[in-house]
Amino acid sequence: MSTVTLSLDDCHSMARLALQGQGFSEDQANAIADTITAAERDGCTSHGLFRVPFYVNALGNPGTDAKAVPVLSHPAPALVRVDAATGFCPLALKVGLPALTEKAYEQGIAALAINNAYNIAALWPEVEHLAENGLVAMAFTAANAFVAPAGGTKPIYGTNPMAFAWPRGDQPPLVFDQASSVSARGEIQLHLRDGKPIPEGWAIDANGQPTTDPEAALAGAQLPFGGHKGASIALMVELLAGALIGDLFSFESTERDVQKTGAPFGGEFLLAIDPAKFGNGNLESRQAHAEQLFAAILEQPGTRLPGDRRRKARLSTRTEGITIPTALHTQLAGYRSN
Amino acid sequence: MSTVTLSLDDCHSMARLALQGQGFSEDQANAIADTITAAERDGCTSHGLFRVPFYVNALGNPGTDAKAVPVLSHPAPALVRVDAATGFCPLALKVGLPALTEKAYEQGIAALAINNAYNIAALWPEVEHLAENGLVAMAFTAANAFVAPAGGTKPIYGTNPMAFAWPRGDQPPLVFDQASSVSARGEIQLHLRDGKPIPEGWAIDANGQPTTDPEAALAGAQLPFGGHKGASIALMVELLAGALIGDLFSFESTERDVQKTGAPFGGEFLLAIDPAKFGNGNLESRQAHAEQLFAAILEQPGTRLPGDRRRKARLSTRTEGITIPTALHTQLAGYRSN
Repeated sequence: MSTVTLSLDDCHSMARLALQGQGFSEDQANAIADTITAAERDGCTSHGLFRVPFYVNALGNPGTDAKAVPVLSHPAPALVRVDAATGFCPLALKVGLPALTEKAYEQGIAALAINNAYNIAALWPEVEHLAENGLVAMAFTAANAFVAPAGGTKPIYGTNPMAFAWPRGDQPPLVFDQASSVSARGEIQLHLRDGKPIPEGWAIDANGQPTTDPEAALAGAQLPFGGHKGASIALMVELLAGALIGDLFSFESTERDVQKTGAPFGGEFLLAIDPAKFGNGNLESRQAHAEQLFAAILEQPGTRLPGDRRRKARLSTRTEGITIPTALHTQLAGYRSN
Repeated sequence: MSTVTLSLDDCHSMARLALQGQGFSEDQANAIADTITAAERDGCTSHGLFRVPFYVNALGNPGTDAKAVPVLSHPAPALVRVDAATGFCPLALKVGLPALTEKAYEQGIAALAINNAYNIAALWPEVEHLAENGLVAMAFTAANAFVAPAGGTKPIYGTNPMAFAWPRGDQPPLVFDQASSVSARGEIQLHLRDGKPIPEGWAIDANGQPTTDPEAALAGAQLPFGGHKGASIALMVELLAGALIGDLFSFESTERDVQKTGAPFGGEFLLAIDPAKFGNGNLESRQAHAEQLFAAILEQPGTRLPGDRRRKARLSTRTEGITIPTALHTQLAGYRSN
């Protein structure tokens, strides 16, 4: 496969200019380019430049606003809300995260609701950002009905990721960001493209029978990880990112997507907690304690901490840049002048 | 097996008098009896009167205080802390939950840390209590190293439950309370007692090899549910109920238990969120929306909502009472006059 190598700065410009060429405002395009560049920096290519066409396709939905200006409000002393105004999540987060951080420092714990947003990105960049500011963070989002409930056979939940971050002081935060389904949807799509069967346990077909055929799986339902316990997590994510904050459930997001763009639309719910407050102002003692746990885990052969791969990738991409398929490079260059 | 039938009131008296007979203060004994009676009421016998001897055995640890008076403090506007003072969790919760509820109403979200507590009970009673007051609630606790980390073979995490509750208005809250391990430890102990092999995937032996022998499993390590994703949840629970709130990790709790009483000692972390605040004061609209999700799930044959079994048990135990083995009844009666 022919490839092109780009610096992270070039990656950012490429994303920004492609989006601006398709009608995104400079603020929206910049925020999305930040998110995409963070993903490429961390070797997470499935959320990198590869996603630019997903953002562009989302404009196919009536009412999607590529120039949306998010609106910040304060429903309660420890709550922040950002109405993304049918724009995209990265800019809404850029508006909401500083307010969430400030409230978490003041109140000890705070929550942020993002509403009416297209959330095409991963959740780890925002929880990592909060942890870089010394906070413990969690994030949840739900969209597009792909996953069957416990005991059921038809899609109702999204792949419903939850993310968590712990601040590690002079090291990058410990971060995980995981779907409530066994596999990401994209992994099934890659198996279909490559003509390979999927592992058992990932999905059921449209008749509710176990399948290893990726096409049958995509037409059927994905399964939650770990059986009914993963399904409980998926249900919790629906309630937090949907009913709690007054936004859509996954099945409602799917119903809303009349143009079948597949762009996930709805809410995101974030929590931030200040460990310094529980530690009587001593963040360092809380962090030093956590390091004892991490050391005890890593003492065992075969273990690693969540997010290790991302942290390692980061060390090389800053100097060596990133590599993308020439076809994607050409597509994005074409977006600019459209 | 010979059994004795008791009313819920008799159950409460039996627990309270047994504990007081063993040196528990009236306040400690009453709070524990409330928790035990709630479990029996909901058909959750493994957390019912069966647990009284566990509370009594915990007194074998030096420093355990059966007459402890919990101390409430307010580290930040949205944070509450209760030092259980090496007493037991139920009384600490009785002191902390009203303060947590008040702060959640005021601030929109609030958190409660319980420190220095024996937590021998389940988590669902406290999240259910918060949801009965209109709040969305989560709870986490970690104690006793039984579960291997992702990729590892030695116990480091506890079975690390997390619980969640959603307020349903005129119906009992939706509640789940699930271990981060595939099975509860007690289930393996029951298989050992009954001479039955455990299912594959529950545990590994002391050499890190998969085992279906319950004795080898208890000497080895339990496995997290859903592979590395369940292990991430277990790690998050350690950090929330340990490092964040300045309390013990599971492996530290095990090290502290010098008398090998097995009584879980450490912290509990709780969150409460007021959905009315995100709903501009309209809790009913948030709840009505959630009911649409529940209806969509229950439309599928074979599904049920978490906690259904407990809600059904509750309907009968109030009138029909509960049944316990005569041997347990005799043991608890003996505790009274000791």
